[in-house]
Amino acid sequence: MAGVGVTAFGRAPERTGRDLFGDAANGAIRDAGIDHDDVEGVYYGNFMGELAEQQGHQGPIMAEAAGVQAPATRYETACASSGAAVRQAVRDVRNGEADVLLVGGAERMTNLGTAGATEALAIAADDLWEVRHGMTFPGAYALMAQAYFETFGGSREDLAHIAVKNHANAIENEHAQYQREITIDDVLDAPMVSSPLGLYDSCPISDGASAAVLVSEAYAEEHDLDAEIAITGTGQGGDRIALHDREHLATSPAADDAAAEAYADAGIDPDRIDLAEVHDCFTIAEVLAIESLGLYEPGEGIGAARRGETTADGTIPVNLSGGLKAKGHPVGATGVGQIADVVKLLRGDHVNSDAVPHATVGVTHNAGGTVASAIVHVLEVAQ
Amino acid sequence: MAGVGVTAFGRAPERTGRDLFGDAANGAIRDAGIDHDDVEGVYYGNFMGELAEQQGHQGPIMAEAAGVQAPATRYETACASSGAAVRQAVRDVRNGEADVLLVGGAERMTNLGTAGATEALAIAADDLWEVRHGMTFPGAYALMAQAYFETFGGSREDLAHIAVKNHANAIENEHAQYQREITIDDVLDAPMVSSPLGLYDSCPISDGASAAVLVSEAYAEEHDLDAEIAITGTGQGGDRIALHDREHLATSPAADDAAAEAYADAGIDPDRIDLAEVHDCFTIAEVLAIESLGLYEPGEGIGAARRGETTADGTIPVNLSGGLKAKGHPVGATGVGQIADVVKLLRGDHVNSDAVPHATVGVTHNAGGTVASAIVHVLEVAQ
Repeated sequence: MAGVGVTAFGRAPERTGRDLFGDAANGAIRDAGIDHDDVEGVYYGNFMGELAEQQGHQGPIMAEAAGVQAPATRYETACASSGAAVRQAVRDVRNGEADVLLVGGAERMTNLGTAGATEALAIAADDLWEVRHGMTFPGAYALMAQAYFETFGGSREDLAHIAVKNHANAIENEHAQYQREITIDDVLDAPMVSSPLGLYDSCPISDGASAAVLVSEAYAEEHDLDAEIAITGTGQGGDRIALHDREHLATSPAADDAAAEAYADAGIDPDRIDLAEVHDCFTIAEVLAIESLGLYEPGEGIGAARRGETTADGTIPVNLSGGLKAKGHPVGATGVGQIADVVKLLRGDHVNSDAVPHATVGVTHNAGGTVASAIVHVLEVAQ
Repeated sequence: MAGVGVTAFGRAPERTGRDLFGDAANGAIRDAGIDHDDVEGVYYGNFMGELAEQQGHQGPIMAEAAGVQAPATRYETACASSGAAVRQAVRDVRNGEADVLLVGGAERMTNLGTAGATEALAIAADDLWEVRHGMTFPGAYALMAQAYFETFGGSREDLAHIAVKNHANAIENEHAQYQREITIDDVLDAPMVSSPLGLYDSCPISDGASAAVLVSEAYAEEHDLDAEIAITGTGQGGDRIALHDREHLATSPAADDAAAEAYADAGIDPDRIDLAEVHDCFTIAEVLAIESLGLYEPGEGIGAARRGETTADGTIPVNLSGGLKAKGHPVGATGVGQIADVVKLLRGDHVNSDAVPHATVGVTHNAGGTVASAIVHVLEVAQ
């Protein structure tokens, strides 16, 4: 990981996707200290460009926005789109297919309005069997939360602690959509969206972009780059897209598989992990994520935030960036945005690095749909 | 290449993308003689699913339609989407990331109607600088044809020979959308779409799907598979998406780059090539393609069909399948559809195999937009 770059996540309805990505990509290229001409490929994640900007075929557009001339491909796995792009780039750099790759993602959403964006997001669910019968994502994750409560126990208050924690983590993060504290009562008293999930259990609609430069060890050495953080593990899992095809709504086997593959790839056990950035599109999703990552046994993740274990001063800080909840969730940008935060946290130049001064291993968990797609990456400080 | 499968291309507005892909994928799996459970990943190309079926996140849906449980990612590079999927699968099998991958693509288009599909296709061009000012693909390729004529010479009649040839090739192909002969006069007398391109210079709007099973040499040996055809070269090129950013409209450097990379990868020169399936979305596109592939010098491809060199009985048959013009162009399915045709032509079980009884090397050329993306593959009969 030679460099990372992100735009602020938030409301920027007047900015195009290419405008956003150009900023993030050039930030990453500057951070890496490489020449634009050295980039051999652009691996780009985007989810709803056809609907938000009437723009498909965004790969070449984003290469141009980044100021590079290289083959460009768009990856799409719903909200895990740029996670999928990173995964492929890691493989290709490792396997000698390229020495320098630009990865990233962008999403323009707020120009659609809340209802329009919710409708656009719904195309990540099954149109035939879910969406046209009224299912949207708040409803789907509410079913997962109900199933979790019934199977393992837990309460709205347990979930509220996750939202409060993630808002607290974002207060100093100038790239975050919401830099403001909230309380447990704020969460519990907020309008109900789909029981048991209220407004503050849900991530916002966001615009934004993220990028990273991946280089081979040989290139980093030759160009004397400061690439002390490496992606040492990558994993991907897949599941049926419709909830009714799942064996259980309170588990996410696609993420279990992705984590197992990433850990095996990195040669680590989950007890080596110092911090995690996970896909908390809804508060319940963070619970499922930390269980899939093996940080908690099934049924035990629900109380982690409440017990202060996943807070900034806890044993295993989760979503020090603020997470999707407070940092924001410009869909295609989220996967690489997580990577950017972990890189900075491990390098020590993140606004919240002080919370993890001795961290050497971080993990990202990026999910698509109701975790029909999941991508996990392990990042480590190079020895 | 252990197996290939395709649906008929044509009008099937009542069939969903998953329905189409399920047929193609299971055809490929049967053709390969492998177990569904051995598939380790699904690499899938689709272009306009968000617009035609309100369905993104199609990777997991298509894995389910294929009857496999494996991580699935969608690739999108406009009309070269499944070409990009194949390319990545080739790399990953070669590099030991997987032993068995299912690749393919599907597109549902005719349910949108001709105007709706033309509008949806336009999102492969630059919305800001082209589409909203009235540019659609027939217009863009017409500009390229005009530029070609001005630079190198050529006439509508030269182009008409391409359409006539491709229709002739499709007559016996039961998977083709148009199994009927046309004449030079039919082409010249057809309604003008965008000068110099008439209706018969243009490929149709199509529904369809294609799939292929890629296996490692070790897996093929272990399972005693009949995998005599191998992809020996892969290349990808990229260019600016908007026509006004190109140095010249009568060349396609992205395809030049893709061909050069694929030939270097395979270790062949273009004179080794026995047949080609190229991206003739418009007749002029076939001319540009055979020049980029190095089968003709710039400016000399225009007369190839007229001189009978690229016809079925010519020295280098091009689009023996009927091409996009007569076989049809269900966008996401086209790249792997080309691969399927070349595999069959080289195996000797294609309806037009008799035209190339001694062929050992075939090439595919799959382009996105006005060749802002290009993917080239070399296929060879294993020694």
